[in-house]
Amino acid sequence: MANVQARVEAALARFLPSERIAPQRLHQAMRYAVLGGGKRVRPLLVFAAGEAAAGDSGADLLRLEAVACAVECVHAYSLVHDDLPCMDNDVLRRGKPTCHVEFDEATALLVGDSLQALAFQLLAEQRLAGDSGTQVEMIRIFAAACGSRGMAGGQAIDLASVGQVLSLPELEHMHIHKTGALIRASVALGVRCANAPGTEQLARFDRYANCIGLAFQVVDDVLDQESSTATLGKTAGKDAANHKPTYVSVLGLARARALAEELRQQAQAALSGLGAGTRRLSELADFIVLRKF
Amino acid sequence: MANVQARVEAALARFLPSERIAPQRLHQAMRYAVLGGGKRVRPLLVFAAGEAAAGDSGADLLRLEAVACAVECVHAYSLVHDDLPCMDNDVLRRGKPTCHVEFDEATALLVGDSLQALAFQLLAEQRLAGDSGTQVEMIRIFAAACGSRGMAGGQAIDLASVGQVLSLPELEHMHIHKTGALIRASVALGVRCANAPGTEQLARFDRYANCIGLAFQVVDDVLDQESSTATLGKTAGKDAANHKPTYVSVLGLARARALAEELRQQAQAALSGLGAGTRRLSELADFIVLRKF
Repeated sequence: MANVQARVEAALARFLPSERIAPQRLHQAMRYAVLGGGKRVRPLLVFAAGEAAAGDSGADLLRLEAVACAVECVHAYSLVHDDLPCMDNDVLRRGKPTCHVEFDEATALLVGDSLQALAFQLLAEQRLAGDSGTQVEMIRIFAAACGSRGMAGGQAIDLASVGQVLSLPELEHMHIHKTGALIRASVALGVRCANAPGTEQLARFDRYANCIGLAFQVVDDVLDQESSTATLGKTAGKDAANHKPTYVSVLGLARARALAEELRQQAQAALSGLGAGTRRLSELADFIVLRKF
Repeated sequence: MANVQARVEAALARFLPSERIAPQRLHQAMRYAVLGGGKRVRPLLVFAAGEAAAGDSGADLLRLEAVACAVECVHAYSLVHDDLPCMDNDVLRRGKPTCHVEFDEATALLVGDSLQALAFQLLAEQRLAGDSGTQVEMIRIFAAACGSRGMAGGQAIDLASVGQVLSLPELEHMHIHKTGALIRASVALGVRCANAPGTEQLARFDRYANCIGLAFQVVDDVLDQESSTATLGKTAGKDAANHKPTYVSVLGLARARALAEELRQQAQAALSGLGAGTRRLSELADFIVLRKF
């Protein structure tokens, strides 16, 4: 994992425009928002999925690197916009002042806009699949995951949920979009970097991604309740303070923990039948559920 | 022109998610921001460029429609974000309250984010060129035009220019990014919807696009000075009030008008040698410079 994280960090530093290129302040802020922080869970999933799908023929690491960086750029942009005063109004992220605090609101807005564009540029700048038709399909999947019926739509549902009492299916619907869409896309794109996996294989990878996408959010909610701001590197207890429904507020701590464990087992079950190459995906499912930050 | 405008309006209404699909309020706001307004200059350029490049073999109108809608979605998103309080803080656009006034700031933020994603989805959802490799190249060109070294970067330069005295080259540098990048991409993508135009042809189309991109902004600055808010459908005299440098503040009215006319002639000159199919591009150059709103 540390290997992939270091590789992705170096690739991001290379793909992001230099601070010496105009507009300097914007590029400085983009690098601030993306580099030197985060668990890089989505890039890890891209690499693990790509290696699992490639099997013995070996994964093309340059393809996976570009996809991982694209996904991470979109994740970072969503955090920058999410932290803005008109959204969650947060001041701390990855243990540092949020982008609009360190720079200014207008710059943070443009950082997010530019990072989304950069992500699509990365997906179109080099060969990512056996044929260009598959590459176009990867871009389509990714765009849908980012948009109003994916991640951005999840943010809108999240906004509308403040002060509401949600049922478990409603909460799940929100998170399938807000967190799940990009995690699912990470696995879907990683798999497609390998040459032509079969339909049944694709469905199994997708089932795995769905389970860990939800598990990721359930664990986030548990940690938000249990951990300190120092451990998390972001403001703890924020959702409760903002009257946002969470898995903990809907289920209570014990049942939320049990749900995460159930999802972990479902994710592991989805991997069976996909061959020996899925070891990293399996480890990631464990990491996502058992992590402490 | 009215024909293409009506066609694009209908296509946008079809491509934008219905207000009946969740999240409803976000989709309602996206439709509010895009439909029923604007001159649709960029879509007109996409169609005119596509027809010019296709020549006698005839343009594929479904391809041009998707590209035109993608470009217009990005244009609309840039206006929504540009009007936010942390940017230009404007309340009037296309004769209506701006998106964050009609809805709220958080929704307007997500509208912009979602429209950018939708644009890339449109570019990847159907076949747009003779081969998928060209389609990936189109997406790359478009992403670069949207990003920190294109339109979003132009906004950042614009922000940094408030209260500054710019030279003509500095002003040009700003507008080549802010307005020019997307106009250039409109022509570049329209041309590539036709099958394989030659390198020399591509360079001529690009020269035309560069000239009208700048001319568009020069005329905008002249109109901002000369016209009323009612005529423009957006707040007139805004740049002067915000202490932003404009072609009028740098050159004065008469020389700004002369520059627009010079750029119009250069655009027309670039079209010579591209065959009879360029009539619409030629008309658009005239329209862009001679328009009154």
